[in-house]
Amino acid sequence: MSNPLVISVDAMGGDNGPPVIVPGVVEAAAAGGFGDARFLLHGDAATIEAALARTAARRDRFEVRHTSLVVPSDAKPGHAMRRGKGTSMWNAIESVRGGEASAAVSAGNTGALMAISRLLLRMVGDLERPALVASWPTLSGVTTVLDVGANILCDADRLVEFAIMGAAFHRASHGVPRPTVGILNVGTEHEKGHDEVREADRILRERKFELDYHGFVEGDDIAKGTVDVVVTDGFTGNVALKTAEGLARFFRAELRRTLTGDVLAQAGALVASGALRKMSARLNPSAVNGSPFLGLTGVVVKSHGGADAQGIANAVRLAQTLASGGVVAEIATHLDGRGGSPGQADTERSVA
Amino acid sequence: MSNPLVISVDAMGGDNGPPVIVPGVVEAAAAGGFGDARFLLHGDAATIEAALARTAARRDRFEVRHTSLVVPSDAKPGHAMRRGKGTSMWNAIESVRGGEASAAVSAGNTGALMAISRLLLRMVGDLERPALVASWPTLSGVTTVLDVGANILCDADRLVEFAIMGAAFHRASHGVPRPTVGILNVGTEHEKGHDEVREADRILRERKFELDYHGFVEGDDIAKGTVDVVVTDGFTGNVALKTAEGLARFFRAELRRTLTGDVLAQAGALVASGALRKMSARLNPSAVNGSPFLGLTGVVVKSHGGADAQGIANAVRLAQTLASGGVVAEIATHLDGRGGSPGQADTERSVA
Repeated sequence: MSNPLVISVDAMGGDNGPPVIVPGVVEAAAAGGFGDARFLLHGDAATIEAALARTAARRDRFEVRHTSLVVPSDAKPGHAMRRGKGTSMWNAIESVRGGEASAAVSAGNTGALMAISRLLLRMVGDLERPALVASWPTLSGVTTVLDVGANILCDADRLVEFAIMGAAFHRASHGVPRPTVGILNVGTEHEKGHDEVREADRILRERKFELDYHGFVEGDDIAKGTVDVVVTDGFTGNVALKTAEGLARFFRAELRRTLTGDVLAQAGALVASGALRKMSARLNPSAVNGSPFLGLTGVVVKSHGGADAQGIANAVRLAQTLASGGVVAEIATHLDGRGGSPGQADTERSVA
Repeated sequence: MSNPLVISVDAMGGDNGPPVIVPGVVEAAAAGGFGDARFLLHGDAATIEAALARTAARRDRFEVRHTSLVVPSDAKPGHAMRRGKGTSMWNAIESVRGGEASAAVSAGNTGALMAISRLLLRMVGDLERPALVASWPTLSGVTTVLDVGANILCDADRLVEFAIMGAAFHRASHGVPRPTVGILNVGTEHEKGHDEVREADRILRERKFELDYHGFVEGDDIAKGTVDVVVTDGFTGNVALKTAEGLARFFRAELRRTLTGDVLAQAGALVASGALRKMSARLNPSAVNGSPFLGLTGVVVKSHGGADAQGIANAVRLAQTLASGGVVAEIATHLDGRGGSPGQADTERSVA
C-alpha cells in the first residue's frame, strides 16, 4: 500500500483509558500487516504520553492529539451529540470525516459513539442508523450477526441492507468471497414468521447482491455456523446476543461449581486446567472484540468498554482490515440504486 | 383430594411411542403425590398393553383407549385439525374436553397439538392462541419464559396476558406465591424498545394482577434468574430459546473437544467425569421437560418428541401439578374483565 493507513483512536473511552488502550494500539501497530500504519491518539496528552513511554513503541507512528474533554460513560446519545464537540471521541471521528484517518476506534459509550458517528460521518444511501455487528464464535469459526441492537424496528428493506452490509463485512474480515447469508426466523419454511422477514426473504431470493442467500435460519443455527452471516432486526439480535452471553456466564459458573464439587472433580479440574482455561475464552459470544458500525460513510469500530490491551489490539486490527478492504465503498456500491424507506431514527429507543 | 386426577396421554406421539411413553407414565404414577391418579392411554392397544406388561404398574390405574390412527410427525397444523379426528392425539384432548380427564399430555407434533387443542378446548377469554412456555434452568433455579413460539405478533395486551398466565403457571408449578415478572427488552429504561413492550410495561406498572412486576429485563437476565417469569413475543422468545439451545450444544462440543485434546485433559476428564455428566443435564434450556400450552380452557402439556421415560414422567407430573393447582381457573379469573384485542391467528406463520 503506498499511503500508509491512519487509524484514529479515542484513547479515553472505556473502563480503563490510556493505560490499557495505548498498549493495545501499540500491540496492533507492532503486529504489522498494514504497512507502517500510523495512529492518532485523542485524549489527555500527559496520560497518553506516559502510557506510550512505558511501551517499546516506534514513536514516529503515534501522534497525540490533546483534549481534556471526554464523553461520560453514562451520557445520553442526544446529549453527547449536542455537547460532545471537542471530546476525545468526537475528535477521533472528526479525523475520519476530515480525511486525515481511514478509521476510528473507541471503547466509549456505545450510544454516544453511534450518535456522534451518524452526525459527523452520515449514513450511506438512505440508511437511517448504522447496524451493530456481533462476531459470534461457532464450532467452525465465526458467524457475523447483525443488527444486535441499533435498529429496533426493521422493515424488509432494512433487513436486505443488513444482508448486503453483513456480507461485505464478512468478506473483508474473513476473506470469504461469497458469504452465505440467512435471515433469522422461527422456522425455515417460506411462510414462517412475520411480514418483514418473509418479504426480505422474497427479495433476497430474487436478487443476489453478491452474496449466497441460504434462506431462513433458526436460533440454533448461529452457534452451529450454518451460514456466515445471520440477519435480524436489532431487537431480536440484541436479545439473542445477551441471552447467549448470559448462558455463557451460567455455563462457566456451573463448570466451576462442578469442578470444585468434590475431591475427584477438583483433581480432574486441576489436571485439565490448562485445556479448560483455553476453552473458556471461546465460550462467550462477545469474546471476539471489535464491533463495527456498518452503514456509515467511514469505518468506526466499537471496542468493549472493559477490553484489555489484547482486545483493543483486535479492535484496531479490525479497523485496519475494514479500512484497507474498502468495505464502506463496497457497501455504498451495493446499496446504490436500491429502493428503501427510512427506518426509525429515535436514538433513545435503541439499545445503543 | 377426593376425586383422583385423571390424566389423558397420547401414547403414540413423539419419536419413541409406547415403549418409552408408557414406562414414563408408569413412573409418574408410581411417584405418587396426587392421590391415586388414573391414566387414559390413547393409541394402539396391543403395543400399549405390551409396554404396560413390561412394567410393574398397578394395572387398575391405567385404561387403554384404542385407536389405530395417529397424527404424522410432519402433519401441517391445518391438516391435523381437519383430518385428525380419531387419532390418539385428538382423543387425548377430547377426553379433557369431555370432562373425563383433567389434563392431556402428548409428545407429538407441536403445531398439530396446538391446533387440535385450540379447536377442541378453545381459549380462555379473548386470547387467540395459547402461549408456549419454556422452563429455563438458571443459576438459582428455573425461570419461566413465554411465549417461545406460538404468537409471532404480540401487542401490549397480549404481553400483559403472558405476564398473568406466566405468573399463574410459575405459582402453581414452583409454589412461589407472588412471582416476579419482567418484560424482555433491549435495555431496562422505560423508554427503551418498541411500542408494544413500552405499553405493556406501562399497564403492568399500573395494575398488579397478583404478580410482582419488576420492569424490563435483558437477555442475560434469563440465565441469571433475575425474575421468575420472563415475558416476550413468540418470535423473540423462540429465537432466544433456540439460540440458547444451540449455544448449549456448542458448549458441550467444546468441552468434549477440550477434554480429549491432550493426555492431561483426558486424564482430568476421566477423573471428573461423574461431576461433568451431572452438569451436562443442567446446561440445556430444554432440559426441563414438559411445556404447557397456557390460555386454553384445559391443561395440555407438550413433551419433547425425543423425551425418554424420565422426561415423559416429568411432563406427566407437570400436567398433574397444573390440573390439581387450578391454573386454568386462575388464569380465567385474572383475564376476566380485561380488555384486549384479538391477536394473529394464522397458524402457519408460527413455529408450532
